[in-house]
Amino acid sequence: MSKIKVTIFNENLHDKEENVKAVYPNGMHGAIKECLDADGRFETKIALQDMPSHGLTDDVLNNTDVLFWWGHIIHDKVDDAIVEKVYQRVLKGMGLVVLHSGHFSKIFKKLMGTGCNLKWRETGDLERVWVVKPSHPIVAGLGEYFELPHEETYGEHFDIPAPDEVVFASWFSGGELFRSGCCFERGNGRIFYFRPGHETFPTYYDENVKKVLINAALWAGAPGGVFQTYGFWHTDNYNK
Amino acid sequence: MSKIKVTIFNENLHDKEENVKAVYPNGMHGAIKECLDADGRFETKIALQDMPSHGLTDDVLNNTDVLFWWGHIIHDKVDDAIVEKVYQRVLKGMGLVVLHSGHFSKIFKKLMGTGCNLKWRETGDLERVWVVKPSHPIVAGLGEYFELPHEETYGEHFDIPAPDEVVFASWFSGGELFRSGCCFERGNGRIFYFRPGHETFPTYYDENVKKVLINAALWAGAPGGVFQTYGFWHTDNYNK
Amino acid sequence: MSKIKVTIFNENLHDKEENVKAVYPNGMHGAIKECLDADGRFETKIALQDMPSHGLTDDVLNNTDVLFWWGHIIHDKVDDAIVEKVYQRVLKGMGLVVLHSGHFSKIFKKLMGTGCNLKWRETGDLERVWVVKPSHPIVAGLGEYFELPHEETYGEHFDIPAPDEVVFASWFSGGELFRSGCCFERGNGRIFYFRPGHETFPTYYDENVKKVLINAALWAGAPGGVFQTYGFWHTDNYNK
Amino acid sequence: MSKIKVTIFNENLHDKEENVKAVYPNGMHGAIKECLDADGRFETKIALQDMPSHGLTDDVLNNTDVLFWWGHIIHDKVDDAIVEKVYQRVLKGMGLVVLHSGHFSKIFKKLMGTGCNLKWRETGDLERVWVVKPSHPIVAGLGEYFELPHEETYGEHFDIPAPDEVVFASWFSGGELFRSGCCFERGNGRIFYFRPGHETFPTYYDENVKKVLINAALWAGAPGGVFQTYGFWHTDNYNK
Repeated sequence: MSKIKVTIFNENLHDKEENVKAVYPNGMHGAIKECLDADGRFETKIALQDMPSHGLTDDVLNNTDVLFWWGHIIHDKVDDAIVEKVYQRVLKGMGLVVLHSGHFSKIFKKLMGTGCNLKWRETGDLERVWVVKPSHPIVAGLGEYFELPHEETYGEHFDIPAPDEVVFASWFSGGELFRSGCCFERGNGRIFYFRPGHETFPTYYDENVKKVLINAALWAGAPGGVFQTYGFWHTDNYNK
Repeated sequence: MSKIKVTIFNENLHDKEENVKAVYPNGMHGAIKECLDADGRFETKIALQDMPSHGLTDDVLNNTDVLFWWGHIIHDKVDDAIVEKVYQRVLKGMGLVVLHSGHFSKIFKKLMGTGCNLKWRETGDLERVWVVKPSHPIVAGLGEYFELPHEETYGEHFDIPAPDEVVFASWFSGGELFRSGCCFERGNGRIFYFRPGHETFPTYYDENVKKVLINAALWAGAPGGVFQTYGFWHTDNYNK
Repeated sequence: MSKIKVTIFNENLHDKEENVKAVYPNGMHGAIKECLDADGRFETKIALQDMPSHGLTDDVLNNTDVLFWWGHIIHDKVDDAIVEKVYQRVLKGMGLVVLHSGHFSKIFKKLMGTGCNLKWRETGDLERVWVVKPSHPIVAGLGEYFELPHEETYGEHFDIPAPDEVVFASWFSGGELFRSGCCFERGNGRIFYFRPGHETFPTYYDENVKKVLINAALWAGAPGGVFQTYGFWHTDNYNK
Repeated sequence: MSKIKVTIFNENLHDKEENVKAVYPNGMHGAIKECLDADGRFETKIALQDMPSHGLTDDVLNNTDVLFWWGHIIHDKVDDAIVEKVYQRVLKGMGLVVLHSGHFSKIFKKLMGTGCNLKWRETGDLERVWVVKPSHPIVAGLGEYFELPHEETYGEHFDIPAPDEVVFASWFSGGELFRSGCCFERGNGRIFYFRPGHETFPTYYDENVKKVLINAALWAGAPGGVFQTYGFWHTDNYNK
């Protein structure tokens, strides 16, 4: 079986700060890449916001089955023309895994059609991530819940359309809860939003989080393989 | 506008225990009835499991727009023939509001088609009930969350079909979370499952809970009014 | 009970063509207005694309509970700034009823996050509109189906996110079918897409279609009334 | 990769009638078995209603990843104790593919919690099966629609809970439409309802239908493989 082509996008700004480098010497994108490379089923690439075209050239996008997206404070600096290209690729079947503060990225908001607002608090709460859909491929290998000793807190109401499936919900020691793992389909593309991953905590090194990243890449990458030769966009020719 | 006819069913067993009577002198059914009567938009009736036909005669059921259901330890003693009648009424448009341990009632399990299992712990945790669907009629008049100082803890995974809408999710101080307010439609009937209401806590006197009970009765009672003269069961005649 | 404020938007271009004027002397917007005015529960206003601000000034939008939208060949001429204002109003609770070729309008595509493509053919097929959700308020007063002797044909695949509810599905004599009545919620706003309404057929004078327009305005108008003083957008203040 | 274990249940009554034997010399179960055996990814077994335990012994059920179900006029003769065992297996992760008139089987109605009624007419209409979810694994290899020259007609309203996914919808030359391919999850089990398959037509020999049967077995068989060692039923031990 050929490998699933994964491109990992990161705005790569926090990653240059000393306190973040202490946690992620190769950046968060580096940690995610190591996780997927170690699995062996993926062919991975890095795309950083400060690269030409943010590293998301037509050639890169056309050779990506699943795009991971981490962004936070310079969402507005992402080129609209590239957002449009990513959007069109998702509708045609590319998977998209949106991480943490990526909930406010242009691409996620464009695909959701809502404000994607939420509550947040940076107090290093304990996060207990509960599995609320045990039959879902994305939870394969996990127990009934897993814990992250310190994370940023997100709280409801999360302003998204009703997800097709809610796979995880997080409990925070400070009193909030949040739909932490949400699946959506838009066009032929599968989208997974996964909440954890604040830059100052070693979340992407956590063994359970790594299982989720791998499962998410497998789940989101499936349709791309299945539907390359078929889809609604052919219907333009329907009346000829 | 004519009043919505509500029947409140209770297994009425805990309600005879001293520690429960200290909290609910007129039973939990009595507290719920007082809440709905005070609102003025409902015509209420009580049905207890130890009445003939559990108080759910054909005449009562045929004159009920919304049935509230509280049961716990003698679910198995509910007559299957009456469960079948309640079930048929729900499919034809009667609303059903299932409370707390009613998740294991014969009627709820029959309508869900799943085991309806969940986790539970009786340690009087603080329950913080979060609104996760602020646009829903059942949350009218509530804030972003409300608290119950002491409640029984329920935890995921709650083995139900994907709800049509999840309105509330509860955070518990002991570390669990739970989909506390779930809407379902089965046939022409609307079903609302509402988690809070352990017999030893004054939950049904809580001002926010009372708003939910009233909103739930209004929401679940709507279709009965709208669809009395139309529904899928007419289709038996379709080919004549 | 105060009236629901409805604004009817029309691109008002076909309506100036002779063959359309023969069917809709006062425009399609005029026919829809007559329908809602005759009901008595609505306070209606007209907004045309060739008016200043397309007739959708801040004052008009802030005093609209439900916006109807008909557009077709000059979607691209609708001012993006006004689309953004309509979008924000929907998220805050304004209802939106999108008609027929409005599936390709900027506002609908922005709220859906997909291409909203479909198949179409103008051969005056018979359209039989089936009720697939008989418990829904939007079908109140209808039978199991109703027919439109001649309509434009739309066909699947309709590229939208999975609707929250599919209320109608249309059968066409030429061999297509289509999800003709779809409900969505985005933020606090309710959105109803209703397929029928090609400019050259008297669809908006049909007695069953008129019932749908009225039911849709009542359904989409509800949340605006319920949630004016509450919603997720307050959560920006949550951490102060 | 080990083969997916499929058991094909048939009430095996029509299959003994001359006009049906002329179409299905080895029974409909035989045709379905041939289809799956030819694919090579399945290990198949036959279970007939007139076998001891209907051919569904504990040993057979415990060694089944996906159960196909065809029944029609003697649903009521299926042993409730065996229905309960099939039900428990589905909740624990066994896939279930319910065919045609199986919509009225005890097991399907028990899993749906509704009446599962529909309209029907035996006039050999042309059925055009449209793909309404082109991103779904069950449509892999199909075009935008496929046709069955003669089939029994089914019509809406189909009294089921809102499906998790609607994959196919059928157009019938006589004027009806129907949600012909519906996905549900109950507990850890995946359920697919597929409409075509009237006993007097060679539907199960159709090349497109055969692709659907194979895709459905692959889709419904997945969770059984994924979740053998984890599931909600372990939560009984949670408080020990």
